[in-house]
Amino acid sequence: MYDLVILGAGSGGYEGALYAHRRGMKVALVELSPETVGGNCLNRGCIPSKYMRHGAYMLEKFQRMPEYGVFLNGYRLDMKALKEGRDKVVVSIRENFKRFAEHLKIPIFYGKGVLKDSHTVAVEPSGEELKAKYILIATGSSTMSLGDLVPDGRYIYDTDQIWSIEEFPKKVIIVGGGAVGVEFAYIFRMYGSDVVLLELKERLLPTPDIPEESSRYLARKLKRIGVDVRLKSTLLRWVSHEGGVKAYLSDGSYVEADFILLGVGRKPNTEGIGLEEVGVEKDSRGFVKVNQFCQTTVPNIYACGDITSPLMLAHKSMYEAKIAISHMLGEKELKRDEKIVPKVIYSAYEIASVGLTEDQAEEEGYEVKVGVVSFVPNPKAMDDGENEGFVRLVADRSGKILGCHILGPHAGELLHQVLHVMKAGLGVDFLSKCMYSHPSLSESIIQSAMEIHFGAITWSKRH
Amino acid sequence: MYDLVILGAGSGGYEGALYAHRRGMKVALVELSPETVGGNCLNRGCIPSKYMRHGAYMLEKFQRMPEYGVFLNGYRLDMKALKEGRDKVVVSIRENFKRFAEHLKIPIFYGKGVLKDSHTVAVEPSGEELKAKYILIATGSSTMSLGDLVPDGRYIYDTDQIWSIEEFPKKVIIVGGGAVGVEFAYIFRMYGSDVVLLELKERLLPTPDIPEESSRYLARKLKRIGVDVRLKSTLLRWVSHEGGVKAYLSDGSYVEADFILLGVGRKPNTEGIGLEEVGVEKDSRGFVKVNQFCQTTVPNIYACGDITSPLMLAHKSMYEAKIAISHMLGEKELKRDEKIVPKVIYSAYEIASVGLTEDQAEEEGYEVKVGVVSFVPNPKAMDDGENEGFVRLVADRSGKILGCHILGPHAGELLHQVLHVMKAGLGVDFLSKCMYSHPSLSESIIQSAMEIHFGAITWSKRH
Repeated sequence: MYDLVILGAGSGGYEGALYAHRRGMKVALVELSPETVGGNCLNRGCIPSKYMRHGAYMLEKFQRMPEYGVFLNGYRLDMKALKEGRDKVVVSIRENFKRFAEHLKIPIFYGKGVLKDSHTVAVEPSGEELKAKYILIATGSSTMSLGDLVPDGRYIYDTDQIWSIEEFPKKVIIVGGGAVGVEFAYIFRMYGSDVVLLELKERLLPTPDIPEESSRYLARKLKRIGVDVRLKSTLLRWVSHEGGVKAYLSDGSYVEADFILLGVGRKPNTEGIGLEEVGVEKDSRGFVKVNQFCQTTVPNIYACGDITSPLMLAHKSMYEAKIAISHMLGEKELKRDEKIVPKVIYSAYEIASVGLTEDQAEEEGYEVKVGVVSFVPNPKAMDDGENEGFVRLVADRSGKILGCHILGPHAGELLHQVLHVMKAGLGVDFLSKCMYSHPSLSESIIQSAMEIHFGAITWSKRH
Repeated sequence: MYDLVILGAGSGGYEGALYAHRRGMKVALVELSPETVGGNCLNRGCIPSKYMRHGAYMLEKFQRMPEYGVFLNGYRLDMKALKEGRDKVVVSIRENFKRFAEHLKIPIFYGKGVLKDSHTVAVEPSGEELKAKYILIATGSSTMSLGDLVPDGRYIYDTDQIWSIEEFPKKVIIVGGGAVGVEFAYIFRMYGSDVVLLELKERLLPTPDIPEESSRYLARKLKRIGVDVRLKSTLLRWVSHEGGVKAYLSDGSYVEADFILLGVGRKPNTEGIGLEEVGVEKDSRGFVKVNQFCQTTVPNIYACGDITSPLMLAHKSMYEAKIAISHMLGEKELKRDEKIVPKVIYSAYEIASVGLTEDQAEEEGYEVKVGVVSFVPNPKAMDDGENEGFVRLVADRSGKILGCHILGPHAGELLHQVLHVMKAGLGVDFLSKCMYSHPSLSESIIQSAMEIHFGAITWSKRH
């Protein structure tokens, strides 16, 4: 009898297992195979893409090295070496986790976990049954097709398959200007590919929780580095053509390329694991219904991550696992709140957002105050040759922080200081009086709070 | 009649002028010349050194580029280009500030500011007199000689003169293993110089507020990249020799080099500006005596920065300027507290510290709890090829955070999230429940709080 059995050893599952162990629970994981431990994020998502993105970022930085007295005699690109380096990191993290679980005596059962009743998980095909006081469903999500764009790993790749390519494409068409699309557009472009990026909507990253300014800056930069960004564009149909594809677009034009990469939506993995049978309810899109403690309609069964909402982020899953486990232990302090989940995109800029944008806050009826500080004059950003972008801090009339949107160097790390301040319920009054080191990028965050608290002197609201 | 006249337009002076302007005060600055606006930090300190450090950091990163599929065909170094890029950033920041001050109608009077009485500053040599309700002394500090090591800009450079060199030295002796010494050792070494780094004490960065672990990691890394680190070593005497220097060391050996760089102490600029005459008291070392609101012994005269204590950091000065000005406005919320002033060193690692080390906390009688998390297994650090270093979080028995010490990638930015949490008076309970994005370096900070709050599972206390 386990205190907790977790279905899925992806981000939510393994973070949950470690947390449950820390909290004194006897815990077991069920995962499809030794090769899928770590889930999509580790094996086919954030980790390998951020690795390649780092290479792309370095290639971009090469262009400014003469300003640092370094004149390169050119370089040669080799995708096999990139792939090898990338896969080494992925495998190393995966094996480390498995060794660590073994060290902590957290067993991982390999196979498909299926609920038999509210306290029993069967591992298929072995049929082994695990009894548990609590069960956490952390089964993640899968890629989807888009109309006749059916991934085949030859002409059309999805984000499961793209990792297997052995050469950089001469030219690639990326369908979807969301996070996946803009990340791969940057990677391929910096590694020398021609890239056509298609987005149906009128802007990249077309989600209401990312400000239009971020989309605009990103589109401008991607164009500057040579990405063919096509907004309000769709791929109508495609044919195989001279070893590659010929794609017909909604504007009447066509594009020839080596292949098409699909950066479109994902669906939750909630089929065929016995949820319906034991009474765990799902919504019409297949997401598991959970309350603010990640509890499903069966009280001792919890769910976390990609299967609880369309906000499919590794750290949302990790945090929801903690919420669920804390609740199993009788605590009610941690609660689901998607408004404080950070979103970080690593493309031609780092783009980090949390909470409401100005537009969202206005729609919700707030009297909005915005502090905007540019990275252009930031001394540390200038020293690093990366003085582009901004901090946009959004507050209500009382100074309560409603959101923060950073685009620029290390935005993904910088955002955390605002996250913590928001979690503490502190406002711009507090943040404006915090200390910073000089020179630092963080100065710009404190300055954005000063812009609101003391009035703007450094930058106009909209620019 | 001004509300505030500030002596010195360095970090404290110009940040203070902007802050006073924001708060509605009529403010004026007095600064030696148009070329010294921005002070030591901008013109001869943090800004130009961080610029060169970024070049050094990039050169180090080149070595791992094959792992990212990028094979360089070699490169050529050119100190003139580095100098040109560096000086361009410095001048740009300086001119921007001057234009900004002009735009805000903050006058800068050029000359030496001397107190005539507690409400009058004379600008020498013009003799123009400025009347002020309040005066803020922000005159900074100057380099010092060390025995017969008298800077001459030929055989012996100090940190005022080093910026003028036109070629990288073949070999350089750096005296002093403090912040300046370890930063220049890294820069020169990565740009191809042979470097001998001498430190009198038994460790680099030998100040009690930096943990021994940071010193040890740094020494190991500097040695790995080829710096000849000599601890417990002093330079006894030197002679000019074949166009360079021959230096005799305390261990009986000698070293020949192009020149010697002095990275030793600085003295406060508190002489000859009329302080004694108007009754502003100084201590035996020449520092201006101030209370917790940066007020001197003359109530309407305040002081900030390098002249208030040996903790000579630009951001200490900036923050003290804010403390002083807030107090002039009748506010008592902001107070001097050197325990929450961050220290950030940019050498072969970024090394960031705030508050107490474990050793200091133990000496002060705390029952110390430490959360240590290594960057070695951090997925973002692995993606970036920079998975070295650690977060050491120090708390008392109740979980109150006493200090935090980060060594590794972007430590200088990462520390801010802990700074803010410490300022808010929140402890490891709070920090351990904060959200992070994945993958991020910031995860390691949250994990360090979890190590304390829930008990350690990932790392031993001392390693």
